[in-house]
Amino acid sequence: MSLPHQPVELYDPIKYIMNLGGKRMRPLLTLLGYKLFSDDIEKAMPAAVAVELFHNFTLVHDDIMDEAPLRRGKPTVHNKWNENVGILSGDVMLVKVYDHFLELDVDPQKLKSILGKFNVCAAEVCEGQQEDMNFETSDHVTESEYLEMIRKKTSVLLGFALEVGAEIAGATEVVCRQIRDFGINLGIGFQLQDDLMDVYADQKKFGKQVGGDIIANKKTMLLIEAIRRAEGDNKKELEDWLKAKDFDNEEKVKAVTELYNRLGIKEAIEERMNDYFNKAFNNLDHFPVAESKKDKIRLLANALIQRES
Amino acid sequence: MSLPHQPVELYDPIKYIMNLGGKRMRPLLTLLGYKLFSDDIEKAMPAAVAVELFHNFTLVHDDIMDEAPLRRGKPTVHNKWNENVGILSGDVMLVKVYDHFLELDVDPQKLKSILGKFNVCAAEVCEGQQEDMNFETSDHVTESEYLEMIRKKTSVLLGFALEVGAEIAGATEVVCRQIRDFGINLGIGFQLQDDLMDVYADQKKFGKQVGGDIIANKKTMLLIEAIRRAEGDNKKELEDWLKAKDFDNEEKVKAVTELYNRLGIKEAIEERMNDYFNKAFNNLDHFPVAESKKDKIRLLANALIQRES
Repeated sequence: MSLPHQPVELYDPIKYIMNLGGKRMRPLLTLLGYKLFSDDIEKAMPAAVAVELFHNFTLVHDDIMDEAPLRRGKPTVHNKWNENVGILSGDVMLVKVYDHFLELDVDPQKLKSILGKFNVCAAEVCEGQQEDMNFETSDHVTESEYLEMIRKKTSVLLGFALEVGAEIAGATEVVCRQIRDFGINLGIGFQLQDDLMDVYADQKKFGKQVGGDIIANKKTMLLIEAIRRAEGDNKKELEDWLKAKDFDNEEKVKAVTELYNRLGIKEAIEERMNDYFNKAFNNLDHFPVAESKKDKIRLLANALIQRES
Repeated sequence: MSLPHQPVELYDPIKYIMNLGGKRMRPLLTLLGYKLFSDDIEKAMPAAVAVELFHNFTLVHDDIMDEAPLRRGKPTVHNKWNENVGILSGDVMLVKVYDHFLELDVDPQKLKSILGKFNVCAAEVCEGQQEDMNFETSDHVTESEYLEMIRKKTSVLLGFALEVGAEIAGATEVVCRQIRDFGINLGIGFQLQDDLMDVYADQKKFGKQVGGDIIANKKTMLLIEAIRRAEGDNKKELEDWLKAKDFDNEEKVKAVTELYNRLGIKEAIEERMNDYFNKAFNNLDHFPVAESKKDKIRLLANALIQRES
């Protein structure tokens, strides 16, 4: 990815965030989506860069909105520079995303199709972020509202990343849709897994504080299910913890986790998560390509599913 | 322009800012650029909407960065909602800009050309905004740095607005460039005119406070030229006013205006402004279309030039 040098306040933050690392899962998915149908992966590179750049654009702006001081253990862009730099360098990143798509060596009609799909995805990612912020102050979030929020906020981009690779490689529209659905189901499963790990991960192996979501009353699938299931004393206890202002973090995490255990939340969400993973692998089984071609995607998906929990 | 309804925090601000009014100069330029070469202006409408939407996207984000409470006499988006809503609804506006371009009924190859040009323009607008913010804290801004900043921040979009209309209507690349140059020269002239009006407008007819730039030490072309020209006592007086912390606004405006008058700043900047307007009309004279076709653009340009000053 080549960028201008000036003004440095605009372009240095882009280089900074893009070099912070991360799993690079999205561009990998684009290349894997491409590899299902064609071998010369160079052709998919501009889209892989575009997808990663878009993901990082959302991180820069989301970190401002969430007032996050750190990202991948390093200062966030608005923290290292300032908020204005974060807003504006994010904006120019989004413009550069489209520039990378325009670099694709594909028929202009196909480019138009890819941009149309990307626009739907990008608007949904923004909608998901807004819904997530709305949930913070909402008294009642339903399971289906939550699933729709995570579909938009995190899953559609995984689906698009795979789909755009396949489309560049010449997959038909029907197959593109199957691949996108695989990515979306996988993504929803991942998010439910994240929700579970926040409560049930081994602190020694977990990068963040276990129970962070509980401390912050974050409306995850676990809390939504607990609110739905809790009755009587359990209901009162849960409501008290949600209303509590002064509390010991460790005590709250322990108490709410025990409440979740009594209510069978872990098993319920695991079942839901596995439904999405099964749906995803079912999508994968139906791709009209040789099984040997699907191995890398299966391997990646399994590696991500069997994370420490 | 049709937008989804939900989430309302994302889409209501877009409707709000788009309905605040304004001169609609940019979409008008797109339609006029189109009309030079073809009559069925419906075909240019998606681009006209895209250009106005992009302009409003920059207003929403710039108003956050500038901490502006009002826009066109009404609360700015981040003031009426909050900063996060301003960031995120701005982001989705930029995505929708590209959606509108995709609605154009043009050959996909031409669409690719249009998007490429728009990306250059959009990145330059961001660069110009960053440079403008940098100037606030910079001790020394040269005339050429200032001209390059206003070229990017305000003029390239006027140039693009005209050019995209002409390109959709089938103008050749050479003619497109001439029309863009007309818009850019006109835009730089307008900005210099704005700088002049801020000091020399008749308060009764001026929408803002006369001398606002002087009070804020804004590095306009007038101040840059004054710093370059001032010597001896004039230099000392100007430096004192620039350093002053506690002052009476009216007194500062009066003193600096008198200093400008002694230094012949008004005449110098008017000459510079007229150079750009003359360049613009010279570009217009050379368009390879019948004079009668150019009348509307000439009329608009002249109407904008003869604003109250």
